[in-house]
Amino acid sequence: MDILYDDERLDYLLAENLRIIQSPSVFAFSLDAVLLARFAYLPIQKGNIIDLCSGNGVVPLLISGQTKANITGVEIQKRLYDMAVRSITYNNLEERLKMIHGDIKEMPDLLGFGKYDVVTCNPPYFTSPSPEVINANEHLAIARHEILCNLEDVIRVSSQLLRQGGKAAFVHRPERLLDILTLMRQYQLEPKRLRFIYPRDGKEANTILVEGIKNGNAGLKVLPPLFVYNQDNEYTLEVREILYGKEK
Amino acid sequence: MDILYDDERLDYLLAENLRIIQSPSVFAFSLDAVLLARFAYLPIQKGNIIDLCSGNGVVPLLISGQTKANITGVEIQKRLYDMAVRSITYNNLEERLKMIHGDIKEMPDLLGFGKYDVVTCNPPYFTSPSPEVINANEHLAIARHEILCNLEDVIRVSSQLLRQGGKAAFVHRPERLLDILTLMRQYQLEPKRLRFIYPRDGKEANTILVEGIKNGNAGLKVLPPLFVYNQDNEYTLEVREILYGKEK
Repeated sequence: MDILYDDERLDYLLAENLRIIQSPSVFAFSLDAVLLARFAYLPIQKGNIIDLCSGNGVVPLLISGQTKANITGVEIQKRLYDMAVRSITYNNLEERLKMIHGDIKEMPDLLGFGKYDVVTCNPPYFTSPSPEVINANEHLAIARHEILCNLEDVIRVSSQLLRQGGKAAFVHRPERLLDILTLMRQYQLEPKRLRFIYPRDGKEANTILVEGIKNGNAGLKVLPPLFVYNQDNEYTLEVREILYGKEK
Repeated sequence: MDILYDDERLDYLLAENLRIIQSPSVFAFSLDAVLLARFAYLPIQKGNIIDLCSGNGVVPLLISGQTKANITGVEIQKRLYDMAVRSITYNNLEERLKMIHGDIKEMPDLLGFGKYDVVTCNPPYFTSPSPEVINANEHLAIARHEILCNLEDVIRVSSQLLRQGGKAAFVHRPERLLDILTLMRQYQLEPKRLRFIYPRDGKEANTILVEGIKNGNAGLKVLPPLFVYNQDNEYTLEVREILYGKEK
């Protein structure tokens, strides 16, 4: 199939009946992106949504089935941006989904301050990689480590892009919870909803989902926990429904 | 029984085989105090532990069975302090458990800075009560509302009392999570362990347990969730074990 390069695959986004181009050696989306897409508040009929650090466009593609709003994805890596553009074309979503190849830090000047209703971001989780990590695979290193943008950049830019009352949703690691919440409040994204993802019952959380409201009032809700696997090592019902849709 | 006044009762602290004096109209301990006592790190053989906002002494009594350390409780309400002293006497624990009638804000000057290994506190949860609430029952109002001390007092004093590397454990409400974590970091009590208590699976958390280390390194763990009730509206196994001890 001539839209695919090298070791790329055309994978299914099952619940959405869409296809997405990925490559194990460059970028493949994770469960975290799927959880973020389902966690974020989305306007149903109209509005402007922007996804930062989009990678191969997984979050814009996933949320396209849940909203008629315009969706913009921003990705700094040309190779991943290119995968996202081809996936959008393949799924005939060019009218509502647009990708920008660029640095998120330049987006407020480029796109305007306070123009968006919703920001989503699945940012790099890890700080300061060693040079070997970067050399081994630059694409994966940039997607996973805070090389080209850090958490403060993500939160500051999200706040700048959002209108008053707009919502930002992030997925990250529990180790950074305090940094995230502190930075969100510092940049006027008051944390309102927080959800912890546990690999299974009895284990420590390994992922957090958090939503803030631009200039919102204080008052945080901690949503029910989400377990990924049950005791038989299978996806739980909730995760199966997120990945594959409601069972009939 | 002449150690009891008015409508006081001598209740069982089941898992510990102890008795505690309480009164429905003045103060009765909650599940939160029990959860805090089980959550806090305790030295086994020796050390100095201080419990702030002790009420009728429930936390000192509960942890006395888990450690041979010296335990001090601080309570500002004379009526509750007096209940705690009588419970300690009844249980013959005067050698290791001491109650102080006073304001937690004066304890660092009174007891010394950096002298304690562990601080526990189940503080008043609610801000600014209306005058009617205070008039209706002053004892309960002071125990539940930030009338005589607020969250910042609790965290500042805890940090002052702790030695380097000492541990502070608090129980509170999720609405205040951001305030708690921010204040803990501000007063050099780096948050290390966080646990959310959910009334049952599928519900939002209604209680948090958090432990910080004086001048500890950053790095927060989110422990497995704790559910209080199962789907049959009975205590879960974990809560039963906390309340009544391990089942044989």
